Amino acid sequence: MRAVLESSLVQRTIIAIIVVNAVTIGCETSAYLMERVGGLLYAIDRIALAIFTAEIAARLYAYRGRFFADPWNWFDAVIVAVALVPASGPTSVLRALRILRALRLVSAVPSMRRVVGALLAAVPGMASIIGLLVLMIYIAAVIATKLFGDIVPERFDELPRSLFTLFQIMTGDDWGNVAQEVMEDKPWAWIFFIVYILMSTFVALNLFIAVVVNAMNDVEPSRAEAAAGTELESVRQELAAVNAKLDQLLMRERPPELRPQADR
Amino acid sequence: MRAVLESSLVQRTIIAIIVVNAVTIGCETSAYLMERVGGLLYAIDRIALAIFTAEIAARLYAYRGRFFADPWNWFDAVIVAVALVPASGPTSVLRALRILRALRLVSAVPSMRRVVGALLAAVPGMASIIGLLVLMIYIAAVIATKLFGDIVPERFDELPRSLFTLFQIMTGDDWGNVAQEVMEDKPWAWIFFIVYILMSTFVALNLFIAVVVNAMNDVEPSRAEAAAGTELESVRQELAAVNAKLDQLLMRERPPELRPQADR
Amino acid sequence: MRAVLESSLVQRTIIAIIVVNAVTIGCETSAYLMERVGGLLYAIDRIALAIFTAEIAARLYAYRGRFFADPWNWFDAVIVAVALVPASGPTSVLRALRILRALRLVSAVPSMRRVVGALLAAVPGMASIIGLLVLMIYIAAVIATKLFGDIVPERFDELPRSLFTLFQIMTGDDWGNVAQEVMEDKPWAWIFFIVYILMSTFVALNLFIAVVVNAMNDVEPSRAEAAAGTELESVRQELAAVNAKLDQLLMRERPPELRPQADR
Amino acid sequence: MRAVLESSLVQRTIIAIIVVNAVTIGCETSAYLMERVGGLLYAIDRIALAIFTAEIAARLYAYRGRFFADPWNWFDAVIVAVALVPASGPTSVLRALRILRALRLVSAVPSMRRVVGALLAAVPGMASIIGLLVLMIYIAAVIATKLFGDIVPERFDELPRSLFTLFQIMTGDDWGNVAQEVMEDKPWAWIFFIVYILMSTFVALNLFIAVVVNAMNDVEPSRAEAAAGTELESVRQELAAVNAKLDQLLMRERPPELRPQADR
Repeated sequence: MRAVLESSLVQRTIIAIIVVNAVTIGCETSAYLMERVGGLLYAIDRIALAIFTAEIAARLYAYRGRFFADPWNWFDAVIVAVALVPASGPTSVLRALRILRALRLVSAVPSMRRVVGALLAAVPGMASIIGLLVLMIYIAAVIATKLFGDIVPERFDELPRSLFTLFQIMTGDDWGNVAQEVMEDKPWAWIFFIVYILMSTFVALNLFIAVVVNAMNDVEPSRAEAAAGTELESVRQELAAVNAKLDQLLMRERPPELRPQADR
Repeated sequence: MRAVLESSLVQRTIIAIIVVNAVTIGCETSAYLMERVGGLLYAIDRIALAIFTAEIAARLYAYRGRFFADPWNWFDAVIVAVALVPASGPTSVLRALRILRALRLVSAVPSMRRVVGALLAAVPGMASIIGLLVLMIYIAAVIATKLFGDIVPERFDELPRSLFTLFQIMTGDDWGNVAQEVMEDKPWAWIFFIVYILMSTFVALNLFIAVVVNAMNDVEPSRAEAAAGTELESVRQELAAVNAKLDQLLMRERPPELRPQADR
Repeated sequence: MRAVLESSLVQRTIIAIIVVNAVTIGCETSAYLMERVGGLLYAIDRIALAIFTAEIAARLYAYRGRFFADPWNWFDAVIVAVALVPASGPTSVLRALRILRALRLVSAVPSMRRVVGALLAAVPGMASIIGLLVLMIYIAAVIATKLFGDIVPERFDELPRSLFTLFQIMTGDDWGNVAQEVMEDKPWAWIFFIVYILMSTFVALNLFIAVVVNAMNDVEPSRAEAAAGTELESVRQELAAVNAKLDQLLMRERPPELRPQADR
Repeated sequence: MRAVLESSLVQRTIIAIIVVNAVTIGCETSAYLMERVGGLLYAIDRIALAIFTAEIAARLYAYRGRFFADPWNWFDAVIVAVALVPASGPTSVLRALRILRALRLVSAVPSMRRVVGALLAAVPGMASIIGLLVLMIYIAAVIATKLFGDIVPERFDELPRSLFTLFQIMTGDDWGNVAQEVMEDKPWAWIFFIVYILMSTFVALNLFIAVVVNAMNDVEPSRAEAAAGTELESVRQELAAVNAKLDQLLMRERPPELRPQADR
């Protein structure tokens, strides 16, 4: 059973079904296509979901306890479970989330698995800087709500809206207009915005550098370094030969009764 | 014939003609210039195209089968062929594409060839991350079409428009306004936009890092590394001399009848 | 007393109080919450401030002169002092700055301390480039005020406003619209904007690179380099053994009366 | 004379005058200040210019021919010459350029000189990529003028305006709106904009990487590499000692009449 599940044919079939299903869910957004081939699209969707459920069940049966040892299996199981719920759900949000099934492509294609694994591995090293960034945005949002909440209520009236606006400013989107709206009433507000932009950009820049430096540490040695390593190895071997010959010389010159079995 | 084609004079003439032709096609966009020197501009264009066609034909004749071995020759041939079609075509799109002829500058100038070669060589290593990015945009577009299609139809009414809007949001252009239009009706939509921006920025950042790390691996060794390599080489030579002298010592001390021809 | 202050329990309690206090100050921005639990929020705020003041006083008493040797203590003391002032202050600005107390989280969590320390350590190496950037913005602002002050007064009427506008342009926010407003009257103004954008971007890019290169220099050696170092060390030890044996050989062959005590 | 010019006191005085002069030129933009202290500001400006002219003349006299060997002297001379012209010029543009005098700060402060020198040194290595970028923008501008010139004339009516608009799009500013204006008439125009953005971003990214890689090559060796170099040097010295001792051994064992003067 495991051999069947891990066979190249089954793997590729699953990938093909994921792609086809992603396309049909995309087609369902088109009113034109739904009128003509809506029934077919739904049918494909149901069949694909049935196959996914059967595959997860088969894997669960084949690997039993070890199924849950691989986080990618959890990933697949949760995605299919989420897909099973909205299939019968009433609300549009749940129906819309069915497309998350396309994420199974990530777990099905090995090179994508590796990329996502590398992305996730980079996260822990960035925790402190992300924490600092969140703290900065929170502090700036509280200050902005208190100071600018009455002037530009559509941007800063409550803490959540201020958080959103300040996140937007950090990405550099339209911050000039936001600042100018505030500055019409409080001309000194440029201090707040410029300090916030400089600090958040600087911290975000260092977040970025932390990721780059992490990535660099995992780089395999360059060709020059590899060549130096090989050369060093050959030096070490030649030196060992020199050492052995010296032992020979030393032994030969001593009176036979003093000769040890071996120097090293 | 090949010697003529590869001579510095012919090469430079071709480059000059490409530049002149690019300028005249640019001048054709000016109504003012077309009124006064339109005939001249067209004439130069025809002559340049004739020369390009003749040059490709000459190269094809000179190298025969090997002409198609070099992808840059394909590049030149396709560009001239495209240029030949619109010269007689009726539609404005085809006429506008004549300027693509200026791309021949890339194949004619060696340093540009190298730059483009390096750019293209970087693409395969990025395939998985690009795939992940495309998958993410597709999934977000399907969700956005289903959830926001009725609220902000001018941004999300159909899948292609959602794809365009989400690409725009990924580049950080005007995303605050798009999000705010949606949030007027669905206040919780900020979750969608912020998750999408964080994820797509993070993946795009890692795409960028993959390119940098690739580029770093191709960097020639630094001066310090080169110096270390030279020093290591001289150590190895000196050690070989030591070894040879020890062989001499060992041989001299053995009784002549036991001496081998050479130790190494 | 020091043992108590540095105990894990006290440290964690302080961190918890900082977080709780940051949340309550955030809640104070909500009119809804202030109506219902406003008294409680104020009470928590007072208690937290009292604890912070007591903690600083205790640390000052415990470490006395050495308290001022650690810049983080200055940081904490200033933040609590600032918090004490607005508690009795009348103006909204001072009240809003109470949230700066949340910055104590940075000094209380060791990993955040390290991150901020690294960020600050990067600043001196960037001083020259920052100076160059400031000089460029200042020169551009003076030119823009003189040339465009009459055309687009809401952007360039006085030096401070020009500085703000040019900072905004440097961040790439909405610069096309600013340029187009000016170009309606002075069509050649694109020269100014494009030169300014290219130069400021190029200098800012190099500022960024200076930070990356600084960060790279502090990276610990890669595994390949560490391996090469170990191997080199073993070569050096083996060579020392060879040298010692040769000394033995040389001594043995000399007449006893000529033998030195030790060669090295 | 040279000693006087290069003395720390004169250098600092010049720097102080540059800064004061930059501030007074900035103050001249303020109508408020001009009313009250306009005469004083002009007087300081005249005096500063006189001192700069005198200093250049003195340097020219002191170094004669060698004055022109240092490009920074050219830089200073041109800036002062430009400043001399507008002082008597009628047009506002020339008057506005007087502030360029503040650039002398760059040549007067050694650390800024070094930074600018490093920035300029990075330019030649980027020539090919910059050329490619310019070629791409030119081709896109010709195509856009021909295809979109009639639809959105305020963005694409003539080649220069298209070049400006496409430069703006490359910086990511407001490109969504430009594209949407065009797409109202030509719905397929998204192909043009997305291809252009992807290609120009990719090339600009590689331009950036070229600068980073250049900068990395100039980085001094890391501490780990320096340590390896020292260790390698000590290995080489020890090996030389080994070699010398072997020569001694070999010589001693040969019959005296065969001994050479020195092996190496």
